[in-house]
Amino acid sequence: MFESQLSPFRGTDNCVRLVGHRGARGIMPENTILGFEWTLRMGVDALEFDVMITRDGVPVIVHDHHLNAATARGEDGIWLSEPGPAISDLTFKELQQFDVGGLNLQSDYGMRFPEQAFLNKLRVPSLDQLLDLVARPEFSHVRLMLEIKSAPSDTNPALEREKVVRAVVNSVRKFGIQPRTVLHSFDWEILQICQAQASDMPSSYLSNVPDQPEDVADHALGLGKFGGQYASAPDAVAQMGGRIWAPHHSDVTRDVVAHAKSLGLIVATWTVNEIDDICRVTKCGVDAIVTDYPARVQRELAKRNMVWRDDPSSHPADLSPAV
Amino acid sequence: MFESQLSPFRGTDNCVRLVGHRGARGIMPENTILGFEWTLRMGVDALEFDVMITRDGVPVIVHDHHLNAATARGEDGIWLSEPGPAISDLTFKELQQFDVGGLNLQSDYGMRFPEQAFLNKLRVPSLDQLLDLVARPEFSHVRLMLEIKSAPSDTNPALEREKVVRAVVNSVRKFGIQPRTVLHSFDWEILQICQAQASDMPSSYLSNVPDQPEDVADHALGLGKFGGQYASAPDAVAQMGGRIWAPHHSDVTRDVVAHAKSLGLIVATWTVNEIDDICRVTKCGVDAIVTDYPARVQRELAKRNMVWRDDPSSHPADLSPAV
Repeated sequence: MFESQLSPFRGTDNCVRLVGHRGARGIMPENTILGFEWTLRMGVDALEFDVMITRDGVPVIVHDHHLNAATARGEDGIWLSEPGPAISDLTFKELQQFDVGGLNLQSDYGMRFPEQAFLNKLRVPSLDQLLDLVARPEFSHVRLMLEIKSAPSDTNPALEREKVVRAVVNSVRKFGIQPRTVLHSFDWEILQICQAQASDMPSSYLSNVPDQPEDVADHALGLGKFGGQYASAPDAVAQMGGRIWAPHHSDVTRDVVAHAKSLGLIVATWTVNEIDDICRVTKCGVDAIVTDYPARVQRELAKRNMVWRDDPSSHPADLSPAV
Repeated sequence: MFESQLSPFRGTDNCVRLVGHRGARGIMPENTILGFEWTLRMGVDALEFDVMITRDGVPVIVHDHHLNAATARGEDGIWLSEPGPAISDLTFKELQQFDVGGLNLQSDYGMRFPEQAFLNKLRVPSLDQLLDLVARPEFSHVRLMLEIKSAPSDTNPALEREKVVRAVVNSVRKFGIQPRTVLHSFDWEILQICQAQASDMPSSYLSNVPDQPEDVADHALGLGKFGGQYASAPDAVAQMGGRIWAPHHSDVTRDVVAHAKSLGLIVATWTVNEIDDICRVTKCGVDAIVTDYPARVQRELAKRNMVWRDDPSSHPADLSPAV
């Protein structure tokens, strides 16, 4: 079951799958249509990205619940002050006034991505815009690792979770992309809802290592809440019905990967950007690497005579334009 | 005269022009249509690239007279042995059998570009393919710095020079791109022919510092041959009728830039990839920077509240796809 969605994420002895993180955040503005399109054109066949809903219920592709002041400029061309407005307080139309094409190079976040192109007039895309892109025949091989973000509101979290799942699933089905979509979340309750409401798509359980203050909240929604009842993180994922376990790379060891695989899980680790980490997780036998720098992973695999595609020369996205 | 071609290469106190070297060699396969299009989409408005002619007289975009064994694979998927076949010995059709989408990561050349995407089935483009790309309305603002390579044959160099210039100029005129093209060469005799045969396009005089064995031949065709008759390199360029002087970045000083500008020249320096060099040539007041890493230059300019475009928010290439 779920072979059409899962096999493109499953590695072999000489193949590690390559997943572009928010497109390819290292070189193009994150979570933008331009960035996604060019990540695909650069030979990456799977995209990871983040979805939440606007006040008027439109699923949009953006990572933070409040617009990141380091990436978003107002109509005056100036970056926002922290905290940016909450996505859940804006309509889709209001959200379109912000330009997310260029990092504030004075910010800590901006300094983390020194090779990212600086663009203007890029907008937070709707999920439908990305689905429309990958519905093109030239991108029919592309797979989506669609991360659903839980709503920050505490007033009725169960209702909020139902609402975002319903909106996302409706969009994916409207474009007929469910045979190419994996639903992915740190919020394991959301994934339980997905498994109940969208049994046509497999789920991918994210976990992190809550050693940074900003990671505590995500941890508390998933492994932190449910993990204690199980022998290990992969045991929890397998018994909760997950098909992919997506651990932070610092959690990856050869033993835990072997154990996850013995439970039938695929291991997709994130966000692996440094050469040493790429080498280490490859040696540990992970199935897939989620990265901001796809070319680095391509290079490290090529050095080892490894591939990231079944047939590296057969994909239409590689073809030069016709003469 | 030549304002339509030259003003996009002329800097101001708060503007340094950005030129993508062979596209953006640092991140995309060099001198490929896919690489050029990506570079334009990333907010770069001028492309530098290399043109020579095949045995059957087709102008093609490739840097080395013999196919570079570090970039070219045969139909068996294996990189060539040195030396690769001479471009002048191949027809355009024969040249199309080689795949120039992926660097040999074991080679010295391949190791120089650790962030370059690895692609398959990319071919050496004809000049016409690039002209066709930039003839699209969305790229009507794009400028070309078209480097003409002299033929290596010694049998009749004057005839060879006439032939390549004629082929290049015919192609550019066929697409009507001469108001956006600068003719650029290390071979200053070629530029003299261009000035005689193509008075509708300005010329750009390349010079290098022959401190590496591979640079000696280029030097001998231009500054090394003609420079001794003039007070300085910029004096030579100005008196020979050039409009742009394109020195290697190690030749750039504040004084020589000021002198070149006092002669009415534009100074476009190459190939500036390291942050320290980008900062240094910017302080020296160059008009334009030719780079393998456009995002680095964008970032360094943005840090100084400098721009690379007249109106950074007005270019169609920046616009997100429509909803």
